[in-house]
Amino acid sequence: MTMEGFRVLDEKSLREYIKATPSLASKLGNEVDNFKIKEVGDGNLNFVYIVISPSGSIVIKQAIPYVRCIGESWPMTKERSYFEATALKRQHGLSPKHVPEVYHFDRTMSLIGMRYIEPPHIILRKGLIAGVEYPLLAEHMAEFMANTLFYTSLLYLTTTQHKSAVAEFCGNVELCRLTEQVVFSDPYRISEFNRWTSPYLDTDAEAVRNDQILKLEVAELKSKFCEKTQALIHGDLHTDGHVDQGNDRKTYKAWIMDTIADTWNLFYKKFTSLWDIHKEGPGEAYLHEIYNDLELRELVKQKYMMDLFHDSLGFAAAKMIRRIVGVAHVEDFESISDLVKRSDCERRALEFAKNLMKKRRNFNTIADVIAVAK
Amino acid sequence: MTMEGFRVLDEKSLREYIKATPSLASKLGNEVDNFKIKEVGDGNLNFVYIVISPSGSIVIKQAIPYVRCIGESWPMTKERSYFEATALKRQHGLSPKHVPEVYHFDRTMSLIGMRYIEPPHIILRKGLIAGVEYPLLAEHMAEFMANTLFYTSLLYLTTTQHKSAVAEFCGNVELCRLTEQVVFSDPYRISEFNRWTSPYLDTDAEAVRNDQILKLEVAELKSKFCEKTQALIHGDLHTDGHVDQGNDRKTYKAWIMDTIADTWNLFYKKFTSLWDIHKEGPGEAYLHEIYNDLELRELVKQKYMMDLFHDSLGFAAAKMIRRIVGVAHVEDFESISDLVKRSDCERRALEFAKNLMKKRRNFNTIADVIAVAK
Ligand SMILES: Nc1ncnc2c1ncn2[C@@H]1O[C@H](COP(=O)(O)OP(=O)(O)O)[C@@H](O)[C@H]1O
Ligand SMILES: Nc1ncnc2c1ncn2[C@@H]1O[C@H](COP(=O)(O)OP(=O)(O)O)[C@@H](O)[C@H]1O
Ligand SMILES: [Mg+2]
Ligand SMILES: [Mg+2]
Ligand SMILES: [Mg+2]
Ligand SMILES: [Mg+2]
Ligand SMILES: [Mg+2]
Repeated sequence: MTMEGFRVLDEKSLREYIKATPSLASKLGNEVDNFKIKEVGDGNLNFVYIVISPSGSIVIKQAIPYVRCIGESWPMTKERSYFEATALKRQHGLSPKHVPEVYHFDRTMSLIGMRYIEPPHIILRKGLIAGVEYPLLAEHMAEFMANTLFYTSLLYLTTTQHKSAVAEFCGNVELCRLTEQVVFSDPYRISEFNRWTSPYLDTDAEAVRNDQILKLEVAELKSKFCEKTQALIHGDLHTDGHVDQGNDRKTYKAWIMDTIADTWNLFYKKFTSLWDIHKEGPGEAYLHEIYNDLELRELVKQKYMMDLFHDSLGFAAAKMIRRIVGVAHVEDFESISDLVKRSDCERRALEFAKNLMKKRRNFNTIADVIAVAK
Repeated sequence: MTMEGFRVLDEKSLREYIKATPSLASKLGNEVDNFKIKEVGDGNLNFVYIVISPSGSIVIKQAIPYVRCIGESWPMTKERSYFEATALKRQHGLSPKHVPEVYHFDRTMSLIGMRYIEPPHIILRKGLIAGVEYPLLAEHMAEFMANTLFYTSLLYLTTTQHKSAVAEFCGNVELCRLTEQVVFSDPYRISEFNRWTSPYLDTDAEAVRNDQILKLEVAELKSKFCEKTQALIHGDLHTDGHVDQGNDRKTYKAWIMDTIADTWNLFYKKFTSLWDIHKEGPGEAYLHEIYNDLELRELVKQKYMMDLFHDSLGFAAAKMIRRIVGVAHVEDFESISDLVKRSDCERRALEFAKNLMKKRRNFNTIADVIAVAK
């Protein structure tokens, strides 16, 4: 990867860049001397600019050659931008209602120009923290996951298509390595990057580092993350939703639990129904001539979905753990300013997550998981 | 893949080719007007020539753009030769005593020049059929497998190295697809290519096609073959060995069983000891800082090796099944001219294989497997 031609943009140079780029300027109605730019990147890695003119808007996302939240001491290839753009385009093609359209990609500049998801859309996490109920959330999440996962898996693809996609995304190794480290490694060892609500969680963090069964399990998940090329995943969810009324805590908790259950159950339904629709399609995994028996098809689906369910629980648990004792935390907990209260919530979440990871194979339905979470 | 510059060689044109290629001619002591060529390819895919001069010898293997044992009606990219050469070179580097050295590779011509493994070496299968005992066989097989599998897995490699190797070998998709079809698909469906000792095994072949549990299991194995990028495997074993005395059947059977057991047990020992040696090495899978506890390391090894054992049993079973009801059979059975006797042996092997695939997770040691095989 070369640095040649790459410059970190600021508002001024971004303005020039947009002026000189017809595919971006046109989205602003070509009002190239009349648009506002605002940097909003709250992420850990990239710069994100919202650009608005009287007749249009875009978002510009630029990757820089280090981890933004750490600084230049943690280099990170800006080539990740290429894979993000590629994934966004592919996923937009598969689930256009749930992924912003990419208008422009500049590999040299590691710059993506895409649709601005304007207010009243807000970041889902913030809505959830504010107690907003999203009646369509489960439906939309399930739809997005079913579309993007099914169509990039061997349930739909030939191995020729699949291997070509795998080869391409193998190039995204640096970002994958970051995930390996911060999700599957650092929380389980002493690392300068780890942090937690100290001193309250000191012994809890230590317990994670000394939990042999947990380490055995996380190794299995890490191996799946590194070696099992099952489908295209990309973690950034910019979920849209209609802002609703706030609600009392008890009702809201029930809504969240229901939504989690609905999301999995709807995903199950949508994913397997895509599979049914394409059962005579090109997918190499379960060729129709071999798996055409109705009873067998049911068996196959149950087994596949059960494995996927257990994997999902395992990865969910790993993500919960890393958000509590790893480098990057989440507002859900960080916004609790009373540290005793915060650490208490975190401890309960951590215990739940550890149990979930270790016992994930014992859960048969999402209702079983919810029962324990309650 | 282009055909430009590619020609299927015959003895005459091969002679000219060798003359014009110093890296080959030099292995023949540059006696370019004094060497013999013999085509010996007994394989399903390629042409293999043994070339001998008074002062040296080589083997030339050329891939042709179709499946040799089927004919031009089944096209097969000659690019497979590139991946075979690449795998041979990598494996020779890792286990030089067990893999012939590649002297020359010509991608355009899909031509590999390599060391001739001369007599008394014979093809292992033929030695086994003739009742030859190979006292070093288990040791050599175990050594080859431990070296080539360990060093190409994430137990030794960083994910950067691993993903780059995965991306490269994704290009070998056509040969992988052939394997998918003839090993994991055709035996479980009606296919014009399938054959079996008919009519004796007609109902047995049908039973395979109607065995739902078997089909459930073979789907899992196929998914591992297609999606799980665990290590570099290449199926062609040209095992060397010293030709020994023939033996009576009972003793020979016992020797075979012992050798199977020894092969796994020695592999287990060698593979885990490589892992021990490199436990602080670059391998991403089990970082030393996380898995440095002795007891945990034992747990981790046991789990990893048990999974590998069950996978091995599953793939062994799949290979047995496909050799009996799929397209390509083996001399072990084909050389039995009495069809009743042959089909009887085949049926017993088939039943054993079906049982092995379905129950593979119930076996804890190779001794358990041998007990059932007996
Ligand atoms: N297309 C978009 N429309 C509206 N806001 C966006 C868009 N893309 C990013 N953002 C805002 O920028 C933030 C950071 O973007 P994100 O893609 O998550 O960056 P990172 O990958 O660095 O985490 C998001 O949380 C969101 O607030
Ligand atoms: N390096 C070698 N030395 C001696 N004999 C060889 C060598 N390579 C191939 N052969 C002979 O040619 C046969 C076919 O080669 P093989 O590599 O198995 O071809 P295929 O991949 O088409 O099955 C082998 O079974 C063996 O008899
Ligand atoms: Mg983000
Ligand atoms: Mg991101
Ligand atoms: Mg062969
Ligand atoms: Mg071969
Ligand atoms: Mg071969």
